[in-house]
Amino acid sequence: MSGPLADVLAAIDRDRPAALERLFAWLRIASISMEPRHRADCVYAAEWCAGQLRGLGFSVAVRPSLSHPMVVGKRSCKTPGARHVLFYGHYDVQPPEPLDLWTRPPFEPYIAEDARNGAMIVARGASDDKGQVMTFLDAVRGWIAATGDVPLNLTVLIEGDEEADSGPLDAFLRENAAELKADVAWVCDSEAWDRTRPAITVSLRGFAGAEITVTGPNRDLHSGAYGGAAINPIRVLTAMLGELHDKDGSVRIEGFHDGIAEPSAATRERWQRLGFDPAAFLAEVGLKHPSGEAGRSLLELIWTRPTAEINGIWGGYQGPGMKTVIPAEASAKVSFRLVPGQDPAAVLAGFERFLRARLPGDCRLRVTPVDGSRGIAFDPDAEYVTRAVAALTDEWGLPPAIVGSGGSIPVVSAFKDVLGMDALMIGFSHDDDRAHSPDEKYNVESLARGTRSWARVIGAL
Amino acid sequence: MSGPLADVLAAIDRDRPAALERLFAWLRIASISMEPRHRADCVYAAEWCAGQLRGLGFSVAVRPSLSHPMVVGKRSCKTPGARHVLFYGHYDVQPPEPLDLWTRPPFEPYIAEDARNGAMIVARGASDDKGQVMTFLDAVRGWIAATGDVPLNLTVLIEGDEEADSGPLDAFLRENAAELKADVAWVCDSEAWDRTRPAITVSLRGFAGAEITVTGPNRDLHSGAYGGAAINPIRVLTAMLGELHDKDGSVRIEGFHDGIAEPSAATRERWQRLGFDPAAFLAEVGLKHPSGEAGRSLLELIWTRPTAEINGIWGGYQGPGMKTVIPAEASAKVSFRLVPGQDPAAVLAGFERFLRARLPGDCRLRVTPVDGSRGIAFDPDAEYVTRAVAALTDEWGLPPAIVGSGGSIPVVSAFKDVLGMDALMIGFSHDDDRAHSPDEKYNVESLARGTRSWARVIGAL
Repeated sequence: MSGPLADVLAAIDRDRPAALERLFAWLRIASISMEPRHRADCVYAAEWCAGQLRGLGFSVAVRPSLSHPMVVGKRSCKTPGARHVLFYGHYDVQPPEPLDLWTRPPFEPYIAEDARNGAMIVARGASDDKGQVMTFLDAVRGWIAATGDVPLNLTVLIEGDEEADSGPLDAFLRENAAELKADVAWVCDSEAWDRTRPAITVSLRGFAGAEITVTGPNRDLHSGAYGGAAINPIRVLTAMLGELHDKDGSVRIEGFHDGIAEPSAATRERWQRLGFDPAAFLAEVGLKHPSGEAGRSLLELIWTRPTAEINGIWGGYQGPGMKTVIPAEASAKVSFRLVPGQDPAAVLAGFERFLRARLPGDCRLRVTPVDGSRGIAFDPDAEYVTRAVAALTDEWGLPPAIVGSGGSIPVVSAFKDVLGMDALMIGFSHDDDRAHSPDEKYNVESLARGTRSWARVIGAL
Repeated sequence: MSGPLADVLAAIDRDRPAALERLFAWLRIASISMEPRHRADCVYAAEWCAGQLRGLGFSVAVRPSLSHPMVVGKRSCKTPGARHVLFYGHYDVQPPEPLDLWTRPPFEPYIAEDARNGAMIVARGASDDKGQVMTFLDAVRGWIAATGDVPLNLTVLIEGDEEADSGPLDAFLRENAAELKADVAWVCDSEAWDRTRPAITVSLRGFAGAEITVTGPNRDLHSGAYGGAAINPIRVLTAMLGELHDKDGSVRIEGFHDGIAEPSAATRERWQRLGFDPAAFLAEVGLKHPSGEAGRSLLELIWTRPTAEINGIWGGYQGPGMKTVIPAEASAKVSFRLVPGQDPAAVLAGFERFLRARLPGDCRLRVTPVDGSRGIAFDPDAEYVTRAVAALTDEWGLPPAIVGSGGSIPVVSAFKDVLGMDALMIGFSHDDDRAHSPDEKYNVESLARGTRSWARVIGAL
């Protein structure tokens, strides 16, 4: 192990009990961004975090945004010519409800233990995202403790609206673009691949969505008096949406698949090495067959192919028993996961054309689009990735998994779109961490090795 | 006018102020069968009605049923060999909500007036069905006042669960079949054709229905993490139901249209004479094109053709904004209006086969059928119809409309199925009477001429 890094890691290991106490203090703050009555807690959590950064030599401002405050800390490295990294995390948490499913109150963190995970920190936010943010702050602390400095210029941005759709982030990035732009962004808000290795996420699917409403008669009608006479908007809606997919699982909107690239041979080979078991993945949710386009592997479907999903549908009578109504309207929420090459606006326009082409003369259609984002694919061979891979391999003894994500991470899209900046997404949480659910936890091991991992990644850049 | 009838009609006309007061007294009782807290009011309304019948020389019992009590009154005619008629009505009413849309409290009847209707009785139950029941009871009263007797053997059955799906009626009819069976049933719970003539309903559509649920993954999933992998039950449900109708509007369930007769030339000719305006009928509900099978007239579609309607659908997220869920299940309520020749059980079995043939391997389907009824068509040339037509023509100066009904009237099906008895459905209410809605009303004219009409029909049989 080269020069100062051994000292940094030793300092981190010595600091473990104190690190746990610091995280507990943050977890005790009920910074629930979606609940207005917790606004003061959000401010408190932001200030707490600002205090930590000040203690690490950052110049910090807790800055107002359109919603909860943004914590922005800056720290210059003594070494000239060092790289500049923007680290991103969030201090806000999901609402803890339903409370009766928690073993102990959600904002009274404690250590539990089981055979699979060993010691675990249990509290709302333990994993998402306070615990993961702390891995980075404690890595910085380790570097300072052992060497008196961090070998990077750092900007740290910790927001308070990630669990409320990061509403104010875009505007904040735009207004402070010059100040926040760095060589690369580091984001710690994702999962490890498994217990033996973290993951680096190099692609994200984008998003487009719309709520649609079909209106027929001018009021709800009785199906006896009007059945055979009056068009039923649920019939129209199901007929439209029922044609959205081909028998082979592809989406029938014209031009939907245009411009989508196939994964490279190198990418396929990397997937192969992951040892992913599609049957086990599906079995865990009670299924056997992939639902997407026929003839493609499951990872390919989730990471590189677009989808159309009806996320919600409603209309007419939904209570007990029968009520023989022909309703005046029926609605659905439809969303698309997009991949590079697809334009969210063009997809939504194509979707609306698809619907209008199937709309009977007696019905009206209302389409309310939702802000979209493009799919993103970073270069897995970029230097900031390969160096991180090497650093993580040193820590874990195995190379990290280079993965895609089927979901969207709005902040990464914003970094790309607003600041023109790539992001390195590294995460140490596990799929059983119950993020957003009762008894959320973060393994003590995730905290400890996550901190060591960041210390190595900091040293490697 | 022959013999005693003139005296009967004169007695009825003299009795108008008292008749109104009696109806008001009944309307003041909030006999809402669907609300358990109004159970005592239902009993009170039944007893009130029993008292009226006793005053008219009936021997009456208020008999327990599986739900609210049944009022059964019997009155024998002095003339040997007279026909036996079962008159049916109901004393229960719909819940009055929303209360703030009523001009005055729903159980405080009063007389209002407008240019279109003249004087109107406004209260919950005014038209459906207390006012209509009173037309018959007051016709009986007129016969007794003028002649000392009624020229028929009468059984009167007034139930208290019509607005709650007549739950206990079938069992009650079965248990008391011998006692309740008559030559024909008279039912006064339907509408007049227009202001100038009442209607006699000679056909009813039957009913079959089911709630269906498609289940896919074993829990709600995130469409980012699982989109492309996990089957979406809403997609499956819409694809199935979207295929339920052909482009020409017919239902695609195998055998659905088998055994259905076309209307006779005489029936088509009767329809022709009704002067029905399909464009106006559709325009009133904001539509232009009939939704049923192409190439058939609107009356034909509503009165003689079967339908399939999705009365309700739900699944996934239905709140504000987007939530990108792949839900574990999706459901719909589907019902069929049936015509003679169709068997409800066979239709539901065909529907389930239709669904299962489209069910992907990874999904489960649950079908919960609802009790059905067959379509009914009475012979418009039967003596009990032609005599009633003549009597009504005498009263109104125009022959009554001989019509079909697109809906089901469970009690008529029960009379047919359980007692093997035809029903003569005569009604005097109007389509603007706001049955089931705020400010329900019954025209004073409907009450007066309805009573005179029944007096004539009683005399004609």
